[in-house]
Amino acid sequence: MHGSCEFTTAVAQLAPRIGDVEGNRQRAAAAIGAAAQAGASLVVLPELCSSGYVFADAQEARSLAEPIDGPSVEQWRALSREHDLAIVAGLCELDDESAVRNSAVVIDSGELRAVYRKSHLWDREKLCFEPGSSPPVVVETRAGFVGVAICYDAFFPEVMRMLSLAGADVIAVPMNAPVLAPPLEPLVADLITACASAQTNRVYVAQADRTGPERGVDWVGASVIVDPDGRMLTAQAPGEALLTATVDLARARSKRFGERNDVLADRRLDLYDRPAQVIKAGPGSRASLV
Amino acid sequence: MHGSCEFTTAVAQLAPRIGDVEGNRQRAAAAIGAAAQAGASLVVLPELCSSGYVFADAQEARSLAEPIDGPSVEQWRALSREHDLAIVAGLCELDDESAVRNSAVVIDSGELRAVYRKSHLWDREKLCFEPGSSPPVVVETRAGFVGVAICYDAFFPEVMRMLSLAGADVIAVPMNAPVLAPPLEPLVADLITACASAQTNRVYVAQADRTGPERGVDWVGASVIVDPDGRMLTAQAPGEALLTATVDLARARSKRFGERNDVLADRRLDLYDRPAQVIKAGPGSRASLV
Repeated sequence: MHGSCEFTTAVAQLAPRIGDVEGNRQRAAAAIGAAAQAGASLVVLPELCSSGYVFADAQEARSLAEPIDGPSVEQWRALSREHDLAIVAGLCELDDESAVRNSAVVIDSGELRAVYRKSHLWDREKLCFEPGSSPPVVVETRAGFVGVAICYDAFFPEVMRMLSLAGADVIAVPMNAPVLAPPLEPLVADLITACASAQTNRVYVAQADRTGPERGVDWVGASVIVDPDGRMLTAQAPGEALLTATVDLARARSKRFGERNDVLADRRLDLYDRPAQVIKAGPGSRASLV
Repeated sequence: MHGSCEFTTAVAQLAPRIGDVEGNRQRAAAAIGAAAQAGASLVVLPELCSSGYVFADAQEARSLAEPIDGPSVEQWRALSREHDLAIVAGLCELDDESAVRNSAVVIDSGELRAVYRKSHLWDREKLCFEPGSSPPVVVETRAGFVGVAICYDAFFPEVMRMLSLAGADVIAVPMNAPVLAPPLEPLVADLITACASAQTNRVYVAQADRTGPERGVDWVGASVIVDPDGRMLTAQAPGEALLTATVDLARARSKRFGERNDVLADRRLDLYDRPAQVIKAGPGSRASLV
């Protein structure tokens, strides 16, 4: 852990354009610069911010993929060094074995610290990407221990719990949340998962969604920073936006909840490795009392 | 499974009075009767609705506890038979070994079908109750497969997942949610967990909170029925209230999410049994790329 216990974190809600990799790099660079101006130690960029999202087919995704030593990551490394901050960003990755991945990189002090490959693929992503086969990752950075989950990954409480148990202070969630149906009121589905993950694990969640219609798809704009109480520290923003909030590592490192509880220690591991009891209807069911 | 695929479920937000076991039985009976009038096949009552919640000490809790063949459960059984509906209700239980339990009973057609004992105790409950040592339970009733979690149990995604994997269509959550701090906006913490559990498992959640200040404690009033999209089908009510909504078992039994996803089948069990990877700062950290 570097520096003080409190720092500014930022999430950049961006409007990448499909296929415009150079323009997308410029948008990302501008957001990273703005985050640095705002004093951020950590900035999170959306899922697939290098490429755009609504690929016509797998071939288009492949044509927009870059290796992890390609120009996007090289630029992010340079900006991390220049601005002295950590970056989590979504990359359309071409891996060493020529598979196309929906990845996120963690960069700090100019160094690539980890590549995480989305392991829960959503909808047509299954046609374009090879799913990740490694567990989620937590990286020690200048901004504390940063865990990574990409969009639909965060819909799995198992992932958020694993990251928290591994010591994540902040879970960075690069996201591209399409509008699927009339949004839930008063809180959209992707903000509910962020708040629930934060409060049930007592971690910060720093979620960077995209914006800007793309090939007929609209986006939720569910960028947010949530504190360990589950409280949203930022307001939902329309369009491109940089949201910032103060993260206090001490708050994420205490799992105490009230005077006598601890959200991780209170888990009942003795019960979780058994299936729930199922009591079916019919004769004998009265004997199944527990 | 009995009858049609759709039925009415009800949650009763009640104001029990500490120590007034006879009055509490009358309040519960009135709510069950009102649920029957509303055509409900299932009614959920709050945690500890027989006794009240804010016990002065363990002795007081013990003095208000009843065995499962005591008057509250006997009454609920009679009302279930009379009104032809299923009931889930919170009971301050004195078990066979003279331990005091924070329990919930599942009753259908006049029969006691299951007793679940809260396994995650909150705050001063640790002073009054013996925690449950059995996994959560799912009971086949006239209203589909009903799982049970009591208040703080529902704060553990593991519990809600277990119940869903065991086939719960509806997770009944008897609750007593004290106001702990300024409520989260725009959705209080206990509604966030209900919505998140519903949408990440594609189940219904039928949560019955209490109301009515007790010994200086106020209550959130977080009673709600949530559908498998995470959509609240009922509005938050002040004071005593009976909330009802239609449950469609077919919706709870399809875990499909969009065209290509399934919230249970998409879990990556191959990854969840390993810890998350932790990449620490310092020399060699660059070699830890995944």
